[in-house]
Parts: sequence; structure tokens; C-alpha cells
Amino acid sequence: MCQLLGMNANTPTDVMFSFAGLATRAHEHKDGFGIAFFEDRGLRHFIDHHGARTSPVAELVKRYPIRSDNVIAHIRKATQGRVALENTHPFVRELWGRYWVMAHNGDLQGPPPRLHGAFRPVGDTDSEAAFCWLMQELAKAHASVPEVRELTLTLAELLPRLAAAGTFNMLLSNGQALWAHASTRPGSPGLHWLQRRHPFGAATLADEDLTVDFAPLTTARDRVVVVATEPLTTGEPWQRFAPGELRVFRGGEAAEAAAG
Amino acid sequence: MCQLLGMNANTPTDVMFSFAGLATRAHEHKDGFGIAFFEDRGLRHFIDHHGARTSPVAELVKRYPIRSDNVIAHIRKATQGRVALENTHPFVRELWGRYWVMAHNGDLQGPPPRLHGAFRPVGDTDSEAAFCWLMQELAKAHASVPEVRELTLTLAELLPRLAAAGTFNMLLSNGQALWAHASTRPGSPGLHWLQRRHPFGAATLADEDLTVDFAPLTTARDRVVVVATEPLTTGEPWQRFAPGELRVFRGGEAAEAAAG
Repeated sequence: MCQLLGMNANTPTDVMFSFAGLATRAHEHKDGFGIAFFEDRGLRHFIDHHGARTSPVAELVKRYPIRSDNVIAHIRKATQGRVALENTHPFVRELWGRYWVMAHNGDLQGPPPRLHGAFRPVGDTDSEAAFCWLMQELAKAHASVPEVRELTLTLAELLPRLAAAGTFNMLLSNGQALWAHASTRPGSPGLHWLQRRHPFGAATLADEDLTVDFAPLTTARDRVVVVATEPLTTGEPWQRFAPGELRVFRGGEAAEAAAG
Repeated sequence: MCQLLGMNANTPTDVMFSFAGLATRAHEHKDGFGIAFFEDRGLRHFIDHHGARTSPVAELVKRYPIRSDNVIAHIRKATQGRVALENTHPFVRELWGRYWVMAHNGDLQGPPPRLHGAFRPVGDTDSEAAFCWLMQELAKAHASVPEVRELTLTLAELLPRLAAAGTFNMLLSNGQALWAHASTRPGSPGLHWLQRRHPFGAATLADEDLTVDFAPLTTARDRVVVVATEPLTTGEPWQRFAPGELRVFRGGEAAEAAAG
């Protein structure tokens, strides 16, 4: 099972603590990892087809406090597609002068979605093909980058069509918001989310003996949402997505929910 | 003046030595750096809007022997566009299921090229707008990814139209080949290239007290081409591009020259 991690914050925030928690789970995920950080419209995109436990790139990410308002990370256990750099999530495309980043946890069956637009997969995963289809359909649905609310309505129409083909947990961002979609399949890996806000306390990683007290690192205004396949910490009120649920997070808040 | 570095090799080769030479020149280029490594169709893309001398990302690149057959690096001194992540070269787009990477040294004047296709700049540099126009025109000229020779002919038609607007030294790769175009402007910064092949000897960085003997690191079959704004080493036969010259390098060889 792959592991997803997303972060959305109202002020640029580093994700080292959560990424450390994710990388700890990587002992059975040797097939690559990737992480994308938005800084306003700009994007840093680190991928490696070596495991997150041993990769020098992962080491950099764990040590370098990159502050971002939207982050998507993925640790891969290959189900479709070879272990290769071009098959490593998250994937990036440009549309309407914005970068778009997507990572997927799951497995889509059947023929790949029909691609007739300007977006083509570089690798051979079901996930990248699904992302290209999503970009193609977004490009048809809007003439330029719409409001987050409009985009959420369009995604609520498009994502169930992908989710119908299998297990489809997904994170998507264009730097303005973070969209998270949970698979409709019963028994499939889920998605969980958590908001941290004032008063900040301490959190302990579920899989590692590491505790961080966020209080001295934050201000009363800070809002951070973390989305992950499984809760990363103990003692915090993680919420599980309903099957097929689409959520959009903006400025560190759950902006609105659009059930799929 | 920005600094460009390109590498094309017939076997995946690390670029740490040349990148160290480039980064040494970075004392007056505090406005960001970037480097893109192709591994077959896959791409690693490291950018930072902190200078290459101090950036932890640059430190990683200098220490982690990433082996690649096509590399494009850029150290930025901002002329147009703010110092921001989205304005940091090289730029990446996908076309025909291949990633395309471009870096530019120079300054284009006048109105930006007209963009009516699927490629839009995310930042506000002349360079990214020129790249988007190039991708748009390539997409119109061919239905899918053509032979390198065909692409070179198309580029030989397109690049002079960009070069007419100012100083246009450029590196471009899609992972199959490295294209390098020198500015037509007299007195503008140039481009230089060098092939290393058997028998490999030692090279000394022009700006730093660092010598590498390539002989024990290479085989008799290896071919490597390095392209740089200024010769990076002393005692090697660097060749200067003619004004407006377009060259394509493939498998570590100068495949053909197409004068612009």
C-alpha cells in the first residue's frame, strides 16, 4: 500500500515532522517516494525511485526546513508500472499558468481513460494516466483558472468517474488549495485528516519515538491541515474520510465538503 | 550574467565536478539556481531561489552522484522577473509524453511571443514565455515526438525568431538529446562546448583548486559532451559556438550542426 501525505496551511509551514512519520512507514515501500512543495505559484518537486529510508533526497527533505502552504508527498509500493523515476508520484503538469500536482494511492482496473488532449503520460502507471485525464477534462471545463469553489464542483463531477475504476485515494493541489478524495471501495486504505490550530500542543509520531511541541513554533493565527493515509500521530483527533468523500482545504481550513 | 551548464553522455554520468565549477561562479548569482537530470524518460528537477553557494539543495547536488545522460543547469542573475521560485530556471513542460527542459541565458526585449496554445508561463520571466512559445510551436509542427534530426530542423526554424528579440543562449533537452543555441548578438555572453572521450585525462576547474582524473572513472566507450557559458576547466579544448549556432548532442557526440 502506498502512503499519501498532504498539508495545507495559512502560513508557510515546514512538514519535516510529518514527513519523518511518513518515511518511517517506508520499510515496505522501497519503490520510490516524492514530495512537492508549493511556494506561492512556484513549486519544488523532489522525487527518487530509491526508498525514502535510504534516499539522500529524502534525507534532504527531512533536514531542510522548506516552508510551504501546500505540500503533497507519496511513498510508493509499485502495483502498476515499473520502478522507475518517471513512475514516481507526485506528478506535475502546467495548466492555465499554474502547476498542478497529484498523487494517488490505489489501483485502477480496466482500460485507461481516453486521452485526446494536450496531456500525455510520460511513464506507464494508471495513476499518471488518470491525472492526465483529469487535467484534460479540467481544461475543457474552464477557460482559465476558476475560483476554488468552482473547481471543487468540477472535481466532484470528474473524480467519481476515475474512482469507479478501482481504488482511488488522491491528493491534488495547484498551490491555491489542497483537494483530497477518498476511495469508494469498502475495505480499501482510507484517508484521514487533522487540523492543528491554537492552542497548539504536543504530538507524538505513532510509529517512532518522536514528540514535537508545536506551541513554541506557532502563533495563535496559524492553521494547518494534515491529510494522511493513516493517522501519523497519537493523541490527536484524526478524522476518517467517508467513502467517496471529496474535501478541499484552503488556508489551513476545511473550506467545504463535496460528497462524491 | 547567468551561467548555463549542459551535459550529454552515452552512459549515465554524474555532473558533480562540472556543477562544482559552476557553483563556484555563483558568488555574483544569488538569485537562484536549478538543475534537471534526465534518467531515461524520468526527470529530477532541483531548483532553489537561494544562491547555489548557500543552498542546501545545491549542496545535495554537489554530494549525491546522480547519474544522468542529459543534464541542464542554470545559475540565475535576475534581469527580468522577480527573485522567486517560479522564475527559477530550468523550466519543465510535458509534450507528447516526454518532459522538456529549457534554460536561458540572456535578455529578450519587446512584446512577449504570442501564446494561444496549451502552454502558459507560471512566472513572469521572458525566458519562460519564450519556452512556452517554443513548446506551442513544436506542438503545431509535429503530431508526436519526431526523430531528433527532424526536431533539430524545426528548432533551426523556430529559435532564430526568439533570438531576434535579444540575447538568447539556450539549452533544451527532452531526454533524447541536448540542443544548445548561441546568441546572435555580438559581444554577448557565449556558449562553449567540449567533448571528453578515451583516452580520458585530468581536468582542473578554472576557478577552483580542484582537479579530477577521469581515467579511472571511465571506460574506453564513454563519451561526454559538456556545454557551458564559459569554459569550466583549463587545459581542455573548449570550442566556442559561432553567433546564432544551433548544435545538437546525442550519445555524447556532436550529432550535427545546424547554423541558425
